[in-house]
Amino acid sequence: MSDHGTDRQFLERALDLARRGIALTSPNPCVGAVLVGRNGAVVGSGSHTYEGVKHAEVLAIEQAGENARGATLYVNLEPCCHQGRTPACVDAILAARIARVVACMEDPNPLASGQGLERLRAGGIAVTAGILQAEARALNESFANYIRHHRPLVTLKAAMTLDGKIAPPSSESHNPTALGASAAHAGWITSELARAHVQELRHQQDAILVGVGTVIADDPLLTDRTARARRRPLLRVILDSRLRLPLQSRIVKTAQEDVLVLCCFPDDEKRRELAKRGVRAETISQPTQTGHPDLAAVVDYLGEREISSLMIEGGAMVNGEALDSGIVDKVFLYYAPKILGGTASVPFALGTGFARISDAAHVKSIRLHRFGEDFAVEGYLKDPYGDTGDGRPNPKH
Amino acid sequence: MSDHGTDRQFLERALDLARRGIALTSPNPCVGAVLVGRNGAVVGSGSHTYEGVKHAEVLAIEQAGENARGATLYVNLEPCCHQGRTPACVDAILAARIARVVACMEDPNPLASGQGLERLRAGGIAVTAGILQAEARALNESFANYIRHHRPLVTLKAAMTLDGKIAPPSSESHNPTALGASAAHAGWITSELARAHVQELRHQQDAILVGVGTVIADDPLLTDRTARARRRPLLRVILDSRLRLPLQSRIVKTAQEDVLVLCCFPDDEKRRELAKRGVRAETISQPTQTGHPDLAAVVDYLGEREISSLMIEGGAMVNGEALDSGIVDKVFLYYAPKILGGTASVPFALGTGFARISDAAHVKSIRLHRFGEDFAVEGYLKDPYGDTGDGRPNPKH
Repeated sequence: MSDHGTDRQFLERALDLARRGIALTSPNPCVGAVLVGRNGAVVGSGSHTYEGVKHAEVLAIEQAGENARGATLYVNLEPCCHQGRTPACVDAILAARIARVVACMEDPNPLASGQGLERLRAGGIAVTAGILQAEARALNESFANYIRHHRPLVTLKAAMTLDGKIAPPSSESHNPTALGASAAHAGWITSELARAHVQELRHQQDAILVGVGTVIADDPLLTDRTARARRRPLLRVILDSRLRLPLQSRIVKTAQEDVLVLCCFPDDEKRRELAKRGVRAETISQPTQTGHPDLAAVVDYLGEREISSLMIEGGAMVNGEALDSGIVDKVFLYYAPKILGGTASVPFALGTGFARISDAAHVKSIRLHRFGEDFAVEGYLKDPYGDTGDGRPNPKH
Repeated sequence: MSDHGTDRQFLERALDLARRGIALTSPNPCVGAVLVGRNGAVVGSGSHTYEGVKHAEVLAIEQAGENARGATLYVNLEPCCHQGRTPACVDAILAARIARVVACMEDPNPLASGQGLERLRAGGIAVTAGILQAEARALNESFANYIRHHRPLVTLKAAMTLDGKIAPPSSESHNPTALGASAAHAGWITSELARAHVQELRHQQDAILVGVGTVIADDPLLTDRTARARRRPLLRVILDSRLRLPLQSRIVKTAQEDVLVLCCFPDDEKRRELAKRGVRAETISQPTQTGHPDLAAVVDYLGEREISSLMIEGGAMVNGEALDSGIVDKVFLYYAPKILGGTASVPFALGTGFARISDAAHVKSIRLHRFGEDFAVEGYLKDPYGDTGDGRPNPKH
């Protein structure tokens, strides 16, 4: 009956449809569905693009009409079996008398996982699961992490030389991860190709975070240049203990309620000036020993606001504190084929660091990517699909 | 007549035969030859393994006897056309009435390049060149560099974390590239697979070089554990300005006229003690501003002694001085998927370094290698097949 090559092919299409939901569906997962009739032709398809709007499976079924009977449904995620903001997809699939369901992966919510497929099987539907699982898991890793921990998946991103330097010694910078260098923009570390990929990564995030030193040094925009849901602009978070954020910075000038400044020592007048310009400044925790906002508290705070993904873009101080605080789930490290050497250039991370190799942050499941002359290392400090650790999967979903 | 797939296949065999010469032929090139008769069967083959011994082409022709007539000769390097320590291969090929010669690359000696193939063509032999050229060039890059510059090809090798640290802050080390840490061997940076590959790299070298700090910290053996020509053991070079090399170190204990200590401030008594143990200590140049031997002079000195390849294995001080002095031709950088962070751990390179991104050492033609969880970056600061620069190709060959 089932041809593995055909299954993969239609699941690729389902995944492509699912990817249309990037930057639109959060904090919901990205889901795409393709319905293939008994004659092998596509009779319906759908993408989930917004919470509250119909699920991909239902869109595909509605499009197929009578042709759904006896058809095969391809979908990247196990269909839901519970009434949420929309009716359960499993019921719609059974009602449409679909013959077979092929899914890449089970629902990552530990409370629901496998139940949808079980109900389909019980209803006499043939079920295949696990094809293209790695791709499907990568696509919804933030969702999986959020459903487990109710915190954003934290990606630490940096661009550096082969010897781990994010900026040259002094006046030259133009790398948005640099520490407190001046804004003399004489050269980026990585190439245009790598920087274009950073834009793609940013598009996948609900929020990005930098230290105010980076803003003062490089005056970056830190915007997502690709279209995204109006209801969820990319949140630009600035760690700024003493509210040093310049009112003339490009971030402030372009703020549209999408800039959040986290400080420790609020200055009411500066705060009012920022508020006038659409920039919110908040104090969310006691400062740490270093006098900066506590990053664990920052991550919890963002999680409470349904931010399911956060990318940290430096500089060296913030990178170090992120590592020291244990909040980093994932890294995306870009390398230019250059060596700066010397002791005066800016290292990837300041902070305390680890005293022994055996204690060092261990990046697992690494993947290497090439971007022309540059390359990148993608890997995980924590498995977004791993145990919840705290023993309390989020039951909200 | 010629089938490209068949040509590649026999050239792969010629390359395999050539690789048998690694650690045996230096300062001669590695050459392998396969002779294929008119019926498509191999009628002879040969590897060049030692200077003065017959060339690979001649060995193959002698093995084939009468079957060489009308055969095709596969060889990784253009056959020589001049009488050296052995007669010119071109004459032997013409005399054997071989019909066709397929070579991966031309002779890298600018004074001879293309002349052998030209003489074969003039003699009525069909000639094809350039198949598997990249592999063939990589195999003999040290030879190509030496023939041009009369200096060793200098490879800078290091093992580090993703943030460019070669050792943790203090007492823990066990990384032979570490700087002055104690010998508390609590953990290597890279995995066994990557370290096994370092052994392969070492086998390809005529000499390796470390700073005495590394010897004091880690007491490494720095030996090649694979068989090599007796006449050319791997030369272990220690940079040791003030002759601090411990007489009890494993390097001194295993010395068999294969250890060379380069100092600035010789201590006659220590020198005699070392000499008794088969360790030569020499002063070859005025110390640099940092009080260390001048690395450019070291490289020239080794070139005069027919050392055609040198691998620098750290520590941080030597790495930095090697980069600053401009002697590095190539890098082989191993990365473990770990992040040490912090400012106390040992960076890849101390020294002056580069002040601007545009001045940074630019590593070209990079290749990425995976070793289990680890990976490595191989690349070139200078092209071993590039212009001689000084306009004086070495005419000695």
